[in-house]
Amino acid sequence: MKFCSQCGKPVSQRTPEGDNRLRHICDHCETIHYHNPKIVAGCLPVWEDKVLLCKRAIEPRYGLWTLPAGFMENDETLEQAAERESREEANTNLSIHNLYTVISLPHINQVYMVFRAQLNDLNFFPGIESLEVALFDESNIPWDQLAFGTIQMTLKLFFEDRQRGSYPLHTCNIDHRKPTV
Amino acid sequence: MKFCSQCGKPVSQRTPEGDNRLRHICDHCETIHYHNPKIVAGCLPVWEDKVLLCKRAIEPRYGLWTLPAGFMENDETLEQAAERESREEANTNLSIHNLYTVISLPHINQVYMVFRAQLNDLNFFPGIESLEVALFDESNIPWDQLAFGTIQMTLKLFFEDRQRGSYPLHTCNIDHRKPTV
Repeated sequence: MKFCSQCGKPVSQRTPEGDNRLRHICDHCETIHYHNPKIVAGCLPVWEDKVLLCKRAIEPRYGLWTLPAGFMENDETLEQAAERESREEANTNLSIHNLYTVISLPHINQVYMVFRAQLNDLNFFPGIESLEVALFDESNIPWDQLAFGTIQMTLKLFFEDRQRGSYPLHTCNIDHRKPTV
Repeated sequence: MKFCSQCGKPVSQRTPEGDNRLRHICDHCETIHYHNPKIVAGCLPVWEDKVLLCKRAIEPRYGLWTLPAGFMENDETLEQAAERESREEANTNLSIHNLYTVISLPHINQVYMVFRAQLNDLNFFPGIESLEVALFDESNIPWDQLAFGTIQMTLKLFFEDRQRGSYPLHTCNIDHRKPTV
């Protein structure tokens, strides 16, 4: 951020009175601009013993496999965001079960929130952001071709939990922050 | 948003190619500015049969009671955000248990995420954003003096769950969006 989105004049980084963090503050109108983590909402769509993955047609990680997920938008609930992302990327018709993984990524200011979901039919097909959409059973998951650590973590937890037949919430972190001195 | 935070020139609302939503786009440098929901992270701090509430010293809802909670910052995990907010508002020393309520508020573009937590001692005292901090048992909760619907919902669920002795995740919505025509 270089300019104030309210008045268009330059901003500088200062700590507001009563605050303890550097913020972008307008040198002209004094508006304080806050920047906060974004939510990535997604689904783990299941059909019998298989899960649905999408091969990414966009950067980052073009050509690698992911669960359908993307940035939650304003004016929607978490479930709506997860369902919409799955529809956009894979044209799925699914029913959402429980919130399954919540993964903080402090080094990139994201929180992943993935819902377990049940595919209602097999009429899925790639959306514009996917090269390919397919079902994989555990033995065929392309573990070395997954796009993100969050996806790997969610799939590993899912196949472990499936052995036990119970799918509790997992709250985890993937933290690549540099150690503070 | 009226001006581009990258170049300071005016923005207008248009739908980018390949998108289906109006975005703020710079008329000069074409930067697309996305706006996404914010996470409010908080704690439900418990001591024996009591819960800790804070009387707000700031707007909105000055003078009403709340669980310690606030906007998650960049560079932190959800648990760190919840613990920090509780420390800032009530100088608590606590241990976080499980993620307990996740509440989407699509009409104000927020997702509340409240963790159950155990107070480790009684050395809490009001931070600068609180007029007062106190423990309440179920019969003394100031139900008509609570600051937010999310707080009321979380406390109601907690006292119901306590009867059963189990505190599973609750994923809920408080949706005051106007119906779309």
